[in-house]
This record gives sequence, C-alpha cells and structure tokens, in this order.
Amino acid sequence: MLTLAQAQTIMSAALAHAGTAGFKPLAIAILDSRGAQKLFAAQDGTSLKRGEIALGKAHGAVAMGLGSRALHKVALERPYFVDAATHAVGGSLVPVPGGVLIRDASGALLGAIGISGDTSDNDEAAAVAGIAAAGLVSDTGA
Amino acid sequence: MLTLAQAQTIMSAALAHAGTAGFKPLAIAILDSRGAQKLFAAQDGTSLKRGEIALGKAHGAVAMGLGSRALHKVALERPYFVDAATHAVGGSLVPVPGGVLIRDASGALLGAIGISGDTSDNDEAAAVAGIAAAGLVSDTGA
Amino acid sequence: MLTLAQAQTIMSAALAHAGTAGFKPLAIAILDSRGAQKLFAAQDGTSLKRGEIALGKAHGAVAMGLGSRALHKVALERPYFVDAATHAVGGSLVPVPGGVLIRDASGALLGAIGISGDTSDNDEAAAVAGIAAAGLVSDTGA
Amino acid sequence: MLTLAQAQTIMSAALAHAGTAGFKPLAIAILDSRGAQKLFAAQDGTSLKRGEIALGKAHGAVAMGLGSRALHKVALERPYFVDAATHAVGGSLVPVPGGVLIRDASGALLGAIGISGDTSDNDEAAAVAGIAAAGLVSDTGA
Repeated sequence: MLTLAQAQTIMSAALAHAGTAGFKPLAIAILDSRGAQKLFAAQDGTSLKRGEIALGKAHGAVAMGLGSRALHKVALERPYFVDAATHAVGGSLVPVPGGVLIRDASGALLGAIGISGDTSDNDEAAAVAGIAAAGLVSDTGA
Repeated sequence: MLTLAQAQTIMSAALAHAGTAGFKPLAIAILDSRGAQKLFAAQDGTSLKRGEIALGKAHGAVAMGLGSRALHKVALERPYFVDAATHAVGGSLVPVPGGVLIRDASGALLGAIGISGDTSDNDEAAAVAGIAAAGLVSDTGA
Repeated sequence: MLTLAQAQTIMSAALAHAGTAGFKPLAIAILDSRGAQKLFAAQDGTSLKRGEIALGKAHGAVAMGLGSRALHKVALERPYFVDAATHAVGGSLVPVPGGVLIRDASGALLGAIGISGDTSDNDEAAAVAGIAAAGLVSDTGA
Repeated sequence: MLTLAQAQTIMSAALAHAGTAGFKPLAIAILDSRGAQKLFAAQDGTSLKRGEIALGKAHGAVAMGLGSRALHKVALERPYFVDAATHAVGGSLVPVPGGVLIRDASGALLGAIGISGDTSDNDEAAAVAGIAAAGLVSDTGA
C-alpha cells in the first residue's frame, strides 16, 4: 500500500518539476491501489473541475490496470470500448496521457497519479518525475 | 430461470477453459434472465474494475436481448445508438464480444455470462465453453 | 489481498452452514480490501435485488472499516450519520448485521463478506462460519 | 480565494495537532469557496471511504454556508431537511462536527476543511487548530 510519506514525496517532486519547467497550474491526484484518494493538490489558478480531470486520469488507470497513455490508444482505436468502460467504472476515466501507475521495484501496484493542467505530455512528465523521486517505478502505459 | 447449480457448472468450465488455454486473469459474471447477479468470480490479479467490465458485457446482453458481439457491430455502425442505450439502461453495457446469452434447448432465455480479462475473442470462447459444459445453448450475437 | 481460493472456501462453508441450519435462500457477496467483488452467489429463490442488500452489507463494512453490526448500532443512535455516510460512499451501505470484515491472524484487513436472505443474526452466523472455515478471523462489529 | 500555500499550512497544522493529541488516522479535505478540492490527504490506516466522509463534511459546509456543527443541530431537529438537502446537493453532506468554514479576518468565505477519523469533536479540534495556524478564522457552526 502506498504510504502518505511516499505520496508526499511524489507530489513535491511533481510540483517542483512543473515549477522548473514553467508549466501551467496543475491539479494532481494520487490514489492508492484501492482507488482511494491518498493525496491531492490543486495549484492556484486551476479551473473549477480541473481536479476531476486529474482524478479521472488516476482512477481510470487504477480501474483498468493500465497507464492512461494506453487508454488513450484504445480510445483512438476502439472509442466505443472506452466510452463503455467510462460508464462501467462509474464515470471517472480520462483516456489521455498523465495517468501513471505507481509500482514498486517488484512490479506490485501501489497506486496511481493523475495530473492535469498543461499538455498531456507535460502532465505525464511531471508524474514520472514525481514517482522517480520516491524511488518507485512509473507505468505510463506507453 | 437459471439455477445456481447450472451457473456453477458454467463458471467452473469457463475457468477450466481459461486455465488450459493460458488466459490472463478473468472476471466472470453470470446474470439470470432478470439481470440479477447469480454468480460472479474475479481471479487473482484482476484490476480494480475489471469485474464491472464483465458485468457490463453480461448486463448489456440481457438488457438488449443480444449477445455482445451483435452490440459490437451496432457500436461500429451506429455508435450514437449504443451510447444512448448505455445511458438508457443505467450505464452498464459493454459492446465488445464476451457477453453471451444463455438459452435452453427450446431457445428460452435463461440469463447471460460476461467475461473480461483476455482478448474479447478469448473471453467469449471461455463463455461458450462454460455454457456448453452445462448442456445449454450459447448466443454470442454472431 | 484475499485470494479467490480463500473466498471459495468461505462461500462453500457459509452455504453449507445455511443448508444445515435450514436458512432461507441467501445472497452472498465477498469483496476484497479494495471493495472489489471477489466472489458472489445468489441461491435459487432470492428476490430481484437481494444481492444488492448483501453487497451493501459487505461494501459498507469495507468502506467504513467496521463490521455492519457496529454500523447497525450507529444507525440506531445517530441515524443521520448513517444516512449521510450511505450517500457519501455512493449508496451501497446496509447497516444491519451480516456484513463481516475478514482479517488474517495479524489483524490485517483482507476484505468483507455480506449475506442477506434470512434473519440478520442468521446471515451473520453463516458469514462467521465461512470465515472460520478458511482459517481467518471474523470482525462482525460486535 | 484560498491559496494552496494557505491550505498547506492548515493541513500541516491539523496533522500536527492530531499527532500530538494521539488521534486515530485521519482523512482531511480542504475545499475552496467554489467547493473545488484544494488539498486532500489520508493518513495511513484510514478505511476505504473515510475520505468521502471528510469530503462530505467540508462540502456540506460550503454547500449550505454553515459549519457542520450547525448542520448537526439541524439534523437532530429537522432530519427531513438534512435528508432533502443531502439529495439536493448531490449526496456529499455529512452533518456531524468536523466540517469547518474558513474565513478571513473580514469574515469573507475562503473555503472549508472537513476531517474524519477520530471523534467528531476531535476531528473539529484538529480543523480549528489548522485554520488558526494559517492566521484565518474558523466557523464551526457552533
């Protein structure tokens, strides 16, 4: 199970990456392997439901066991499946990059981070930087 | 009405088929003709909401009276209809193969089985194997 | 994490207990610690949504970290809290006995079982018998 | 508008208060005045949906413009109103102490904090300590 201390390290490093790179304001959601929120932050200037996009990237990844870059590919190839899966999992599934599974060195799933606010590629880069800072392994779905 | 004994025979045979064939971990949902869950199992290693995909295949089939392979064809040809039907039936309808109607020898509807975890074709093959083992008739929608 | 083999042992023993004791038809839902369905069965003769009651007992227990007998006590003393919690957790929380947390010998939460169909006390007794048969520890909330 | 820096100060001080006082593991949700999540953390050991209870305390407070201690009083005196309001606001309203409005020195609403995990009185005390540490004004609804 992802600890709060690990999640705080991931969050701080993701925010630091975004600050250095000059990203737009981000919402960042970190879920544990149960799909429960562990840590969430919205930077100043994020729009009303930006957090729900971040949550949807993370939740979709945990729900389907796939980084959201893989879900993005499915959405392009088989949109009806992603539509259906979104409904089936309860509505929170955003199939664009930026939802990254968090694994330990053995490959066990600890949780996922979802970031939204800048481009999807930049969102994902901040997620990957955060996970690396905690000594854990990113699974972007690439 | 599908009996629990019949559902258990279907489930065991579907799992045996998957084991022999080396499928990825499956979630398997069996509904009766009312759409009520009769039997459900998730193998070890399935992702958080894999079961909801299996349920959506089975529920969509019972809801529309069509094996999910037929719903897949509709999703490709008239996606707006499947979108609308998904909403109309409450959100649980997954239009890809693997949701198979269970009929008796006279053609009467007893229920449906939905399987998710491997390819859609493999999911469907496990469902068909399970139904055959119970001496019942598969309607995949092909 | 609760294994399917453990869940099958619990289910079989709960059904055997109910059969020996002459209980009415039961719906039995076993969730893992993520709140995901692991195993479910509805005996012949259960009403259309009996399964949802069983699921609500199990889900409420995992959601709140309390056996449903404890939630029953809260419902009697502070009904507004249980009403609010039911909404907050998404609607599936049934605060009567028969939702039992499944723990290992160290006390770690593996999941929960919810049973509905006979009296709440009998439902709970079947759950406890099932968990004991798997060599695991019941937490009824008493 | 509540800033992320203010929310971080509130969160840290609330967690420090809980640590010193020996509270059970808490979930803490901080919303801005729009009801959007600003910051959220769940300590290790919180149950699956404990976060939803914390969110419901904070959301109910912002939704109705009342600290949740006031909503608790309403729930005791006019339960039908709180039931109806819970539905009307979309399901997330938990009418027990621990949902505290955050105001600036002029009385303007900045947001709310909701805490769940220990007794309601202790949850509220941690919230009040957090708000004080940020130099802001608590409105518990007392």
